[in-house]
Amino acid sequence: MIPSASYSVTLRVHLETDPLGLGRVTTAVGEAGGALVAVDIVESHRNHMVVDLTVNAANGEHANTLRSAVDDVEGAHVHKASDRTFLLHLGGKLESAPTVPLRTRDDLSMAYTPGVARVCEAIATNPDDARRLTIKGNTIAVVTDGSAVLGLGDIGPAAAMPVMEGKAVLFKEFAGVDAWPICLDTQDTDEIVRTVQLLAPAYGGVNLEDIAAPRCFEIEERLRDLLDIPVFHDDQHGTAIVVLAALTNALRVVDKRLEDVRIVLSGAGAAGVAILKILMAEGATDLLACDSKGLLHSAKQGLDPSKAWIVEHTNPEGREGSLKDALKDADVFIGVSGPDILEPGDLAVMAENSIVFALANPTPEVNAAGARRHAAVVATGRSDEPNQINNVLAFPGVFRGALDAEARSITKPMEIAAARAIASVVADDELSPNYIIPSVFHGDVAPAVAEAVRKTAEAGG
Amino acid sequence: MIPSASYSVTLRVHLETDPLGLGRVTTAVGEAGGALVAVDIVESHRNHMVVDLTVNAANGEHANTLRSAVDDVEGAHVHKASDRTFLLHLGGKLESAPTVPLRTRDDLSMAYTPGVARVCEAIATNPDDARRLTIKGNTIAVVTDGSAVLGLGDIGPAAAMPVMEGKAVLFKEFAGVDAWPICLDTQDTDEIVRTVQLLAPAYGGVNLEDIAAPRCFEIEERLRDLLDIPVFHDDQHGTAIVVLAALTNALRVVDKRLEDVRIVLSGAGAAGVAILKILMAEGATDLLACDSKGLLHSAKQGLDPSKAWIVEHTNPEGREGSLKDALKDADVFIGVSGPDILEPGDLAVMAENSIVFALANPTPEVNAAGARRHAAVVATGRSDEPNQINNVLAFPGVFRGALDAEARSITKPMEIAAARAIASVVADDELSPNYIIPSVFHGDVAPAVAEAVRKTAEAGG
Repeated sequence: MIPSASYSVTLRVHLETDPLGLGRVTTAVGEAGGALVAVDIVESHRNHMVVDLTVNAANGEHANTLRSAVDDVEGAHVHKASDRTFLLHLGGKLESAPTVPLRTRDDLSMAYTPGVARVCEAIATNPDDARRLTIKGNTIAVVTDGSAVLGLGDIGPAAAMPVMEGKAVLFKEFAGVDAWPICLDTQDTDEIVRTVQLLAPAYGGVNLEDIAAPRCFEIEERLRDLLDIPVFHDDQHGTAIVVLAALTNALRVVDKRLEDVRIVLSGAGAAGVAILKILMAEGATDLLACDSKGLLHSAKQGLDPSKAWIVEHTNPEGREGSLKDALKDADVFIGVSGPDILEPGDLAVMAENSIVFALANPTPEVNAAGARRHAAVVATGRSDEPNQINNVLAFPGVFRGALDAEARSITKPMEIAAARAIASVVADDELSPNYIIPSVFHGDVAPAVAEAVRKTAEAGG
Repeated sequence: MIPSASYSVTLRVHLETDPLGLGRVTTAVGEAGGALVAVDIVESHRNHMVVDLTVNAANGEHANTLRSAVDDVEGAHVHKASDRTFLLHLGGKLESAPTVPLRTRDDLSMAYTPGVARVCEAIATNPDDARRLTIKGNTIAVVTDGSAVLGLGDIGPAAAMPVMEGKAVLFKEFAGVDAWPICLDTQDTDEIVRTVQLLAPAYGGVNLEDIAAPRCFEIEERLRDLLDIPVFHDDQHGTAIVVLAALTNALRVVDKRLEDVRIVLSGAGAAGVAILKILMAEGATDLLACDSKGLLHSAKQGLDPSKAWIVEHTNPEGREGSLKDALKDADVFIGVSGPDILEPGDLAVMAENSIVFALANPTPEVNAAGARRHAAVVATGRSDEPNQINNVLAFPGVFRGALDAEARSITKPMEIAAARAIASVVADDELSPNYIIPSVFHGDVAPAVAEAVRKTAEAGG
């Protein structure tokens, strides 16, 4: 339980003036396990002072404990505790900003009536001009129905907004893509498909986000057929791209080839199927997949369409058994399932120089430190461990490249090009078991991904 | 035909070096009726120079004439003509801009995962928090189906984008309201209603725009019933608010009272009905309305619902006849119909000190200069005449006030308050037949409207 900025509070403390008071307060914070970030004197009077203490906590309960610890110091009184994450969210995280001035009559007559009419007429005559003369060319829709938001599940469209706004901010900050959140008040597949179709004229692409499986598969598939702009379900393909990038470099570390390794996947949801597909497209052949009941094999009955696809394309020998059985002699474990389903010791049966990607978040399938005793390379979804598998590495550059190429879809070759581009940012002399994947803040990633995706799109027509 | 910025071209001219060449070129522009805005020397060489001439033209054909006129000058050659309005539209007029930084790990952990999850949970627990913690509180949807765009008619959703982007820019520039264009690829009433309903969680209001009548009435009415955020069809209510503001001040000029005057309206479309309603709500009683076939009266059969409403609420004596017949002894003419349907002399039969609002754009119902020979006050929709009736005076402040009040609808009293606020910006000592309505760039208008709307909303609960 490490204190972090995501649980950061600012405590406004009234202190009786006492040269030792402030020291006693900061000591109390430290003894209670808080990480003191900043001390700001707000007011200083003859008899008392007012101090803002910014403190990182480990979780919400810990934040309350810290508040009490400070309040218990003699002569100190906490008047207010402000949650910095909530402060940052006041008013939302996004705005619509004009890119042209509208301050004079001439501005108005060009950007609005009457001049704008000629631009409208040009687009009516030649619809492709919309990419050039409107925001369509650089704007994507971030679409959710609020049914599978982070690990929170079905919290609905309004509560999903902070995530979609954050996603839109990431698109802009990392790749200059304008994105706008669309949180739909329905979970009906037909309605979601139809609504996105009706909205499409104003957008150059659609990023589907946090939509529950199996609905997400059908929605993506139908929209790809219906629309002439790229449709990309990030939970599937973003994750798959970054996993392929990380696996590419992990295999470089252990000097194995994708064609040769046995890969065991845990988790048959949206991400799992997409990972299998991209690994197969890049040359993997020896694949086993497990759901919560163990190995998926062709003798299983009554499977949903995505699991049916899995048994058709993996486990040709029809092996049965548990996830632990499946791990025997496997070279690679990829978990996109749930927390703590394996003990570190379970990994001992894997082949020499094994690779473990335990991506359940925030708690991985297997403890990362424990896993490192058995595996040559370990990656997780956590920011406080080495080798963080994070979709932020993929989606901004993928859409940047697709928009730049005016692509009508994001194809498997474009996804693979994105993965290779991410992997290539880690140079040979940088590569190590603890550095198979660049940081999300590595400035080379999004441009490299964008260029690779654009070139692949253009080469593919 | 006055040259204006809305038809402005930049001509890149190659000139043989000749001390008189540039003068001959600018003379040619002037003789051809162009308004020279700027001369920029791009390159200067021993034997030739390259000059950018920025020239305002009266229309597209005139711009071509100007280009030819310059090209015909001896020693001059136009290499390229760039339309400034199109240049300004390259890439669109709007962007999505982050309001929070995302440059460090701490930023990411507060604005995105894992910190954002707590904000989502707070909204899931208390949905009203969405107004505070997301962009909903300051964001409105600008929704069209592209069926009645400006005077261009049914040009479709993609071609409507430049207008909707311009509208969004106006919302932001004039009132700090974030607005995003939604151009729907359907003209089915049920689909439009349902789509806006599905999108509503992310928005604090809906501005309907350029949707054809009579569909627009039903869409607005149904959405007002379905949604808990304000729905406002600007073509109806924005126009009605500004007309009431202008009429209020015109009556101050001629010293008549709204309760006493006879008003003749031409145009039974979206704007016409809304104007009748707001005038009645403010106290007007003697109202006659005409469509293209003349006076609407209760003996008429087979009227559409909006005309049926008109005959129920106007013309109690059941008068019949043409628009010209109706004008006899009328105090006020309001046209929201078509170009040049009246001769100035037709106005001679109106009462003393008559008021004429000829709002068809760009060509009014009656020539404005001619109308001024018969009427005491004349207003149009044109920016090159005094007294421009322009919706920009209303909609930014109306939504600013509604959002500030967290209003669930925009009521008739809020609309009337907005009209009175606009009228009040013109002080008694400023008021004149040529200044009944403030300029769209008058800085006091939007704040005055916003405050009036907010106070009225809060007073109404």
